[in-house]
Amino acid sequence: MAPLQLSLPATPSNAVGSLTRAGELFQVFRDGQARTRAELVEMTGLSRSTVAARLDALTAIGLIGSAGEASSSGGRPASRIAFQPSSRVILAVDLGATHILVGLTDLSGQLIDQCWTTADISQGPEAVLDLVIEQGNQLLKDSGREATELAGIGIGLPAPVEHSTGRPANPPIMPGWDGFDVPGYIQRSFAAQVLVDNDVNIMALGERAVFWPEANDLLFVKVATGIGSGLICGGLLQRGADGTAGDLGHVQVPRGMGVFCRCGNEGCLEAIASGPALARELSAAGLAASGSEGVVNLVRAGNVQAIQAIRQAGRDVGDVLATCVNLLNPRVIVIGGALSLAGEHLLAGVREVVYSRSLPLATSRLQIVQSRAGAEAGVLGASRMVSDHVLSAARIDAELIA
Amino acid sequence: MAPLQLSLPATPSNAVGSLTRAGELFQVFRDGQARTRAELVEMTGLSRSTVAARLDALTAIGLIGSAGEASSSGGRPASRIAFQPSSRVILAVDLGATHILVGLTDLSGQLIDQCWTTADISQGPEAVLDLVIEQGNQLLKDSGREATELAGIGIGLPAPVEHSTGRPANPPIMPGWDGFDVPGYIQRSFAAQVLVDNDVNIMALGERAVFWPEANDLLFVKVATGIGSGLICGGLLQRGADGTAGDLGHVQVPRGMGVFCRCGNEGCLEAIASGPALARELSAAGLAASGSEGVVNLVRAGNVQAIQAIRQAGRDVGDVLATCVNLLNPRVIVIGGALSLAGEHLLAGVREVVYSRSLPLATSRLQIVQSRAGAEAGVLGASRMVSDHVLSAARIDAELIA
Repeated sequence: MAPLQLSLPATPSNAVGSLTRAGELFQVFRDGQARTRAELVEMTGLSRSTVAARLDALTAIGLIGSAGEASSSGGRPASRIAFQPSSRVILAVDLGATHILVGLTDLSGQLIDQCWTTADISQGPEAVLDLVIEQGNQLLKDSGREATELAGIGIGLPAPVEHSTGRPANPPIMPGWDGFDVPGYIQRSFAAQVLVDNDVNIMALGERAVFWPEANDLLFVKVATGIGSGLICGGLLQRGADGTAGDLGHVQVPRGMGVFCRCGNEGCLEAIASGPALARELSAAGLAASGSEGVVNLVRAGNVQAIQAIRQAGRDVGDVLATCVNLLNPRVIVIGGALSLAGEHLLAGVREVVYSRSLPLATSRLQIVQSRAGAEAGVLGASRMVSDHVLSAARIDAELIA
Repeated sequence: MAPLQLSLPATPSNAVGSLTRAGELFQVFRDGQARTRAELVEMTGLSRSTVAARLDALTAIGLIGSAGEASSSGGRPASRIAFQPSSRVILAVDLGATHILVGLTDLSGQLIDQCWTTADISQGPEAVLDLVIEQGNQLLKDSGREATELAGIGIGLPAPVEHSTGRPANPPIMPGWDGFDVPGYIQRSFAAQVLVDNDVNIMALGERAVFWPEANDLLFVKVATGIGSGLICGGLLQRGADGTAGDLGHVQVPRGMGVFCRCGNEGCLEAIASGPALARELSAAGLAASGSEGVVNLVRAGNVQAIQAIRQAGRDVGDVLATCVNLLNPRVIVIGGALSLAGEHLLAGVREVVYSRSLPLATSRLQIVQSRAGAEAGVLGASRMVSDHVLSAARIDAELIA
């Protein structure tokens, strides 16, 4: 038969060497361990003089520093070097439909301080981002840090976001935000890199970084006013071809047929299992329930109708997740968002359907758990998004050359 | 509030330098372009002597070689160097339920020769793999190549496979294969690296490598005796936490309720939309249809009932894919497998449901197409699996050090 020519992949952008490579050496330190020069020479196979030159470069920009002396079996003790995560700070911002949470962290994601404000995202980008800037400045001031110490700013938005530009794309309930240049606006006040992503993507990053660092396949599901998910596959956040990956809220579920969604379609998961959907259902039955919080309060008070409703919502979410489990075979599904604060009732419904419906091979080691990062998942993830970016080998080398 | 400590990731295994780094330089050549030494110095920032030493090492193992002279504006013309894909060969094997296809390719995936045999996989691993070995030897002999020229052997199996060990895991219809050491058995005859994966994963690799090299998010769906998919997310094949990712055949679909699947569950996609399911349906209506091939023949002959049945199967597959599109946001969905040979009728059903049901943002640039690699998707993917592995920087460096 006729031979067939396979096309070869483009050369990966990081395949070839940089001038310094100090950024690559720095990656060794990201596990937080202190090391001697001799240990680094042994680990890397680099010459002693090369290691010394690269350490000098990293020390000059403050990323590493002395960390005491190694114990010695005789002779002069060797000095140890370690990552200095407090050398710079990150502003990590979680914007919700009705709140602003701004955190100040160091480069390892340790939270230094944070500030919560109620604010309506529908006020538009300038008003909301002005509050973010104000709180960011306040946090820096309160912590005695300078804006020049900022390594970057990470922001999560409750909308699809074009991650490469930081602009929201067709947000359904956010007038004025469509295509708005979020990084450009923030950079009028802070001379720092600004990274923006969808809030659920960022929560997935935060939950994984802090509580599931070993899980390379993790699905974070937010059940609140909307329903969405953040996918980590093969250790990396997956945004899909247009940045819309993870949108489970508008998957059609059998029990939803006959119910119309605000998106115009029929039977969407969000139309029957979100906080507002449950609140409507309970209100129609004569109970006072407003939004996710009202539903959670009724459940916590032991109201049987509310408990039944949230368990059924769990089954509906489980209906969609059963397909996701067969498709993605995750190790962990984390359930977060305001409705998850109702506790085990929601999870029990999810587990009931997923474990009965999905493939045995895919569920034998699957864990379905409540979010442990809770309200802080967003800021922890926003910090991680920034640190992963600014501490990458390529970025450090670029900084050293500049 | 109390500060929260983020755990840092483990150091990536490739973060630090190797002794040679020639493997890294080789990646530059994978695009197939010929280059001069001066161009390589400029591209990499490496010194002229370092480039020379690394080129010597790569030349010694035959991966690169002279490729003529560059045009010169005066003086002695510079010689050009390029990848030599024919320096070694790969045996690429696609095992189906009833066939063995063995291909011989070069390192760029170019097919040199191939051989198709009918064989029943239920004969067990020794009998089937003996045929593979026999055909592999024959292909090498016919092409005038030696077994010592083998860079590796890639095998696709119609079963879940533990990729790290090359052992099938709980294959449903393959007596004797469960946990069988496929690489070990093959290596009794060939002293070469053997990589094994699920057949649909390998088809996804092959289809993408040859026809969609730019698509980083691609879903390959096989519709045949079984229904399964291979996921490429963020440019990489995703196997999930237990290697079962992509198993769409046992997702429950509304139209399947009341129909029991051979897996024991009710309403599985495979129970109503696979080749055998359609053949059963058409046979019950008095038509002579055996398996996927019988169904395809009826459709090609213009039988209206068969056309309606395959269009409905497309809608059922589309029902599941609509959820996959919301979840993964792929750029391309490729439909392959024996039933896809029925052509546009199956695809029309898939498109009808996906485009009406999935998010507009996720479908605006989505393409749903028939497999172009067709029956060769498996061998092309098996070859690619091997070349990606043996041509990686780390593997080349390991070979040079050995």
